[in-house]
Amino acid sequence: MTSNDSLQRLARIIESRKPAQGGDPDTSYVARLLHKGPDAFLKKIGEEATETVMAAKDVDHGGGTPELNAKLVGEVADLWFHSLIALAHYGLSPADVIAELERREGTSGIEEKALRKAQDRDAAEK
Amino acid sequence: MTSNDSLQRLARIIESRKPAQGGDPDTSYVARLLHKGPDAFLKKIGEEATETVMAAKDVDHGGGTPELNAKLVGEVADLWFHSLIALAHYGLSPADVIAELERREGTSGIEEKALRKAQDRDAAEK
Amino acid sequence: MTSNDSLQRLARIIESRKPAQGGDPDTSYVARLLHKGPDAFLKKIGEEATETVMAAKDVDHGGGTPELNAKLVGEVADLWFHSLIALAHYGLSPADVIAELERREGTSGIEEKALRKAQDRDAAEK
Amino acid sequence: MTSNDSLQRLARIIESRKPAQGGDPDTSYVARLLHKGPDAFLKKIGEEATETVMAAKDVDHGGGTPELNAKLVGEVADLWFHSLIALAHYGLSPADVIAELERREGTSGIEEKALRKAQDRDAAEK
Repeated sequence: MTSNDSLQRLARIIESRKPAQGGDPDTSYVARLLHKGPDAFLKKIGEEATETVMAAKDVDHGGGTPELNAKLVGEVADLWFHSLIALAHYGLSPADVIAELERREGTSGIEEKALRKAQDRDAAEK
Repeated sequence: MTSNDSLQRLARIIESRKPAQGGDPDTSYVARLLHKGPDAFLKKIGEEATETVMAAKDVDHGGGTPELNAKLVGEVADLWFHSLIALAHYGLSPADVIAELERREGTSGIEEKALRKAQDRDAAEK
Repeated sequence: MTSNDSLQRLARIIESRKPAQGGDPDTSYVARLLHKGPDAFLKKIGEEATETVMAAKDVDHGGGTPELNAKLVGEVADLWFHSLIALAHYGLSPADVIAELERREGTSGIEEKALRKAQDRDAAEK
Repeated sequence: MTSNDSLQRLARIIESRKPAQGGDPDTSYVARLLHKGPDAFLKKIGEEATETVMAAKDVDHGGGTPELNAKLVGEVADLWFHSLIALAHYGLSPADVIAELERREGTSGIEEKALRKAQDRDAAEK
């Protein structure tokens, strides 16, 4: 992991906001969410996922203007950011998620398996 | 290899699965989702967000065993993966999301603003 | 539809909060959401669905105390309430939803079809 | 027939599909979900909420044709239906949710309180 690793650097900042690390709920948004506990940041994951979907639908219907695209990017950033807070709370890191994504990519046939499932689902829904 | 690089490599693979790039819905899960159109992968974002929340609640209540932690990591991986598919469809990339996260990190006082909002909300809810 | 119809009565109250009916965003929560437009109340549907799922997981793990059950009932009430606001905005009513549920119930074999799909999905996921 | 009655009748049908009542996962979709356990139907609540939001966005952008409206009604029906399955699993009923909605309606000033919170939130977000 190099110093150029943005998600890992962000994870370290979040880590420093933990109550046990002296994160102050009165001066930091992240410290505040971590202090309030899981329901506070898990709720945000559901909320930001919904906002991502709404922003994407607006791009669909609005023709992909720079403004609509930027809105969508901002919502995905919110979604990933709150995922990072959850990971930190549970002692996990973005490196774990990236490793899992790479493991799947490296697993020969992984896409084929997901595909076969999806095809069977489609056949079932006819 | 940074997480930026990993996500970008994954984005290139997804890119190659686009119908216009010759992605074949009969042999690739990603090509299949892209071929079906936005509702197919946007629905997955909502679904994987819900599964992330459920897996996190199980960690909360189950004491963070390796199995429960791995389940949570897998759900976040699913959530990010389907976000990457959506970004690709709209001509966007993980680099755009990373840049937005860094922009916020670099914006002096950004956490303070989010914090002030959250404090006002809490005061309002008393 | 009788006067004893709670959802329909609630829908009429919501109807009266529409801007066109004189609903005042400064004195009514519903008028305020309707005034802000679809994204404001649609976002709440995603949020309340997530809170319903979290409350249900707490009941699962917490043994169904009266407090946890009441929390879950409250979240489902929030979810349905914001659904009613959305329906009202689009000129639809709970009676439309109830009619759809009854239509399905009356359609011979409807559960069998949903079941067959689900079975095929399960077979596919093995 | 009130919507209360309709929902209650639906709840009784769902009740009869419980494993303990002899519900057969091989012949009933509801029995199958109840047999699989909470994560199976809770996941559906997140999924149907997302589909409700997407259908509503399509109505927004598509001008409210009868087809788009019917799609939205169908998604809300799915959302409520899976809420009813969850309620049944936890020994709760739609009557509990209706009672909670009526309690709020009857609580003098309840809308004013929700409103004041929302106003403070808005002020905070400026």
